Amino acid sequence: MRLSQFHLRTTKETPADAEIASHRLMLRAGLVRKLAAGIYTWSPLGLRVLRKVEAIVREEMDAAGAIELLMPSVQPRELWEETGRWDKFGGQLLKLQDRKESWYCVGPTHEEVITDLARHELASYKQLPVTFYQIQTKFRDEIRPRFGVMRAREFLMKDAYSFHLDDAGLDLEYRNMHAAYTRIFTRLGLKFRAVQADSGAIGGDASQEFHVLADSGEDAIAFSTGSDYAANVETARAAAPAPRPTPAEDMRSVATPVQKTCEDVAALLGVPLARTAKSIAAMTDEGFVLALVRGDHEVNEIKLAKVEGMAGYRMATEAEIAAHLGCEPGFLGPVGMRAPARVIADREVAAMADFIVGANRPGEHLAGVNWGRDLPEPDAVADIRNVVDGDPAEDGGQLRIVRGIEVGHVFQLGRKYADAMRCTVLDENGREAVPAMGCYGIGVSRVVAAAIEQNHDEAGIVWPEPMAPWRVAVCVINPKQNPAVIEAAEALYRELQAAGIETALDDRGLRPGPMFADMELIGIPHRVVVSERGLSTGTFEYRARSAAAAENLDRSALFARLAAGR
Amino acid sequence: MRLSQFHLRTTKETPADAEIASHRLMLRAGLVRKLAAGIYTWSPLGLRVLRKVEAIVREEMDAAGAIELLMPSVQPRELWEETGRWDKFGGQLLKLQDRKESWYCVGPTHEEVITDLARHELASYKQLPVTFYQIQTKFRDEIRPRFGVMRAREFLMKDAYSFHLDDAGLDLEYRNMHAAYTRIFTRLGLKFRAVQADSGAIGGDASQEFHVLADSGEDAIAFSTGSDYAANVETARAAAPAPRPTPAEDMRSVATPVQKTCEDVAALLGVPLARTAKSIAAMTDEGFVLALVRGDHEVNEIKLAKVEGMAGYRMATEAEIAAHLGCEPGFLGPVGMRAPARVIADREVAAMADFIVGANRPGEHLAGVNWGRDLPEPDAVADIRNVVDGDPAEDGGQLRIVRGIEVGHVFQLGRKYADAMRCTVLDENGREAVPAMGCYGIGVSRVVAAAIEQNHDEAGIVWPEPMAPWRVAVCVINPKQNPAVIEAAEALYRELQAAGIETALDDRGLRPGPMFADMELIGIPHRVVVSERGLSTGTFEYRARSAAAAENLDRSALFARLAAGR
Repeated sequence: MRLSQFHLRTTKETPADAEIASHRLMLRAGLVRKLAAGIYTWSPLGLRVLRKVEAIVREEMDAAGAIELLMPSVQPRELWEETGRWDKFGGQLLKLQDRKESWYCVGPTHEEVITDLARHELASYKQLPVTFYQIQTKFRDEIRPRFGVMRAREFLMKDAYSFHLDDAGLDLEYRNMHAAYTRIFTRLGLKFRAVQADSGAIGGDASQEFHVLADSGEDAIAFSTGSDYAANVETARAAAPAPRPTPAEDMRSVATPVQKTCEDVAALLGVPLARTAKSIAAMTDEGFVLALVRGDHEVNEIKLAKVEGMAGYRMATEAEIAAHLGCEPGFLGPVGMRAPARVIADREVAAMADFIVGANRPGEHLAGVNWGRDLPEPDAVADIRNVVDGDPAEDGGQLRIVRGIEVGHVFQLGRKYADAMRCTVLDENGREAVPAMGCYGIGVSRVVAAAIEQNHDEAGIVWPEPMAPWRVAVCVINPKQNPAVIEAAEALYRELQAAGIETALDDRGLRPGPMFADMELIGIPHRVVVSERGLSTGTFEYRARSAAAAENLDRSALFARLAAGR
Repeated sequence: MRLSQFHLRTTKETPADAEIASHRLMLRAGLVRKLAAGIYTWSPLGLRVLRKVEAIVREEMDAAGAIELLMPSVQPRELWEETGRWDKFGGQLLKLQDRKESWYCVGPTHEEVITDLARHELASYKQLPVTFYQIQTKFRDEIRPRFGVMRAREFLMKDAYSFHLDDAGLDLEYRNMHAAYTRIFTRLGLKFRAVQADSGAIGGDASQEFHVLADSGEDAIAFSTGSDYAANVETARAAAPAPRPTPAEDMRSVATPVQKTCEDVAALLGVPLARTAKSIAAMTDEGFVLALVRGDHEVNEIKLAKVEGMAGYRMATEAEIAAHLGCEPGFLGPVGMRAPARVIADREVAAMADFIVGANRPGEHLAGVNWGRDLPEPDAVADIRNVVDGDPAEDGGQLRIVRGIEVGHVFQLGRKYADAMRCTVLDENGREAVPAMGCYGIGVSRVVAAAIEQNHDEAGIVWPEPMAPWRVAVCVINPKQNPAVIEAAEALYRELQAAGIETALDDRGLRPGPMFADMELIGIPHRVVVSERGLSTGTFEYRARSAAAAENLDRSALFARLAAGR
């Protein structure tokens, strides 16, 4: 591509609302332009990158045996009523009425549409297993769209759906898709991890997220040094604690006149924070609950909600706390409660001896507390805390916490949608069977932003080669002053193109400084400068985007270098 | 593609609401499935065809220098307010509110979005001319969606927009796009014509439509045998009539007790229909108008509206007719009107002598009527009729009428949008200039349906080769009974694929009848049968989709035949 014939428009300004690097750089490089909150136009430059991602996703989905189709964006309410999601999906569902006042939504996902298709198209077990996919524009009416295309409202997604006669078949395809995703993100040149996930609102069985690793990532991921175990901190588990030691102290009252946090109490007493336990007061349909985690831990709300009887719990109000504990927050604890309450202890807390808790009296804590002696054994013991960096892993390794950006998700949906929508096929015995389903998504436009979060520097984007708009930029110095230079550049450009190396010829006539800055900002992996000086010595100035300095190469060395990079 | 690994699902049933061949065949071949009124899923088979069209469109747009980008589907109301189209666009505009109760529409077209982009991205004349395009899903809330994807509500469109410093530049790009469209439809293998069009609601200057020719087409197109002149009958012009002959008859009253139409009156009097003139009563802001066309002609409402003073006219009510002509419809005429009225005569009527009109008295017509003697010369003479087959053309040839399906449109928009949205660039002198715009659309999904309308027979679709889902079908007879047959078929399939010939291997194990019927229904251009009998004679049974019979070819003759067809 001759850049004089292309629409490239970079800018130095960084909009105030661009909080993260990828958002700033995508706007500065002109990859996208905002049309409205969370709604972006992909510029010619941005679209080149988006199409690279799309092509790799498509190739690997095809290679994995998935079959591409294209479902509509606008979907009728009736289908969403069948699954109950018309109401349950929440505010992200963009609803609308057509001229006949029938209700529709702009599709945020396509489980309903594909299940409707399946119940009409799939009649026999002979048509199974089958996996359909599409690469299609979706809309989710985010309450707070931000971070550019990272959390946009309109976005491009690859969504796939599989149908199986039995769970074993689903499991096989789930692994097949997992492998395809691994190939996709590997081919894209990204550092990533597949992590166990909480499947959240979509529901179902096995579920893994694919995260592009980046310090700015929204999600914290725990992985083990001892195996390929990785999980979102929402669900990550550490090894169970060692058995509870024998009590060594008597319970005693400690004056903590202004010390309301575990940190302050531990500092006052000169003991490790891990010797304290903090109390979280919650309400369920069945009454008041006190949940305990170690002072250096945080309660994990998802895990807590999974403890029996805790589904749909909420935090207790100050009045409820006063009624049950007879005390204001800051000095709460499981000893000497005014009214009976259920006590749920994290595994670590249940394994503590001689620990410190609030005394349920203002300005007072209790130290040397022991289960079974100073208070009853907990009503329930469970893993209800977030893991932390350095926790022992179940596999014997250590847990490390990194940050990631979710770009893919594989789910075993099971029969939830097929049941709700009465999708059946005839099995080998001619009986109606409800197929098991899987669904597999990749946020195609989000991958672009995530790649930038992972790969950028002060000067701009540093594309992994497979995602770069062009692999090579041929920069021409003073093309108008020197016909020999533009001729040599054109010849090199044609040669590179002929060799199948995607090249941008920067023949815009910019001065070297702004031209080089543009090529660095838009992240072209290889830069070749054609200048009068180079012509006189028979060399080209070459610099890899990731290299510190340029070097002078003759033609054959240059081609060898560019061929090697593929 | 091995069809055993593909989702092919044909059906014998024809839905009752499928009125035209392409709609029936697309459903029977399983190219699309209806999700809701005017909203379709493209099956794997259908998507293969859609992508073929898309690829050719993209290649030719790129070759013509247009630059691809991708604009959003959901567009904010504010932009549409700037051009006044939020209200003016009408019921086709699908409006919606997001969770913050801001108004948006699902984009039916992108003039507003591209002009907004241009006013931010284009600063200088140096960036002009530039043509952007996208291939993107659009929504128009048709009041009566029908004919399958031919008049769907959600559809795939290629839309391009160009920006120019002056009208000459716009004209150049308009011709460039016209040439690109000609290449696109030629490469698609379709019979088509570029016709002059009335630009309708979008407004602007030059405008041409590209029509795929098909007897079932909604639009009537007039073309000349004498040049490449072609126009929608809405705007087509015939040659001007010969000068008015000298009157030869006296005006006389004719009793027509029950003859209210020109046809009936001509039959009663035994004269050609072309000797009669019919009167159309209309109202404008300035009063009552009587428009006259020959009895064998139809008034063209678009042409009539373009006559001075007629913009926004409407048909007169019976009361208005009675007030001005003193008579009920069926016997109206320009002679002896009760109140003064403006008379607009079609050119042909103005050139008549001794003609027949209604007498403005029930049961009575006037014959031998002559302008200037029996009634004043018309207030205006204009071309206000539809041309008919056989009319003399302005270029000396004859006009022929064919039917077509509009699949593309090129417009010179001029400065309408740029003016309304205050889009300017700095010209060579540093002064702000409003750029001239062009817009250029192709209904990508509609092209698929139009191609079928033009190319089908009793057995199904007959794809032009460039649009076929696969060029060749290799049909295997009794694969399970004879391993040698499936081996030979697999070998042929691999050879064809290696030769770059897209092939479907029908290894589904169907009996020959249903298998051949499927391949004919889905329109594969070349069919090769691999059977035990063929193996024994070293031949393959070959049949072109369009040929009446099959022939037996050896391997080299087969490959020569398939290579020739490209």
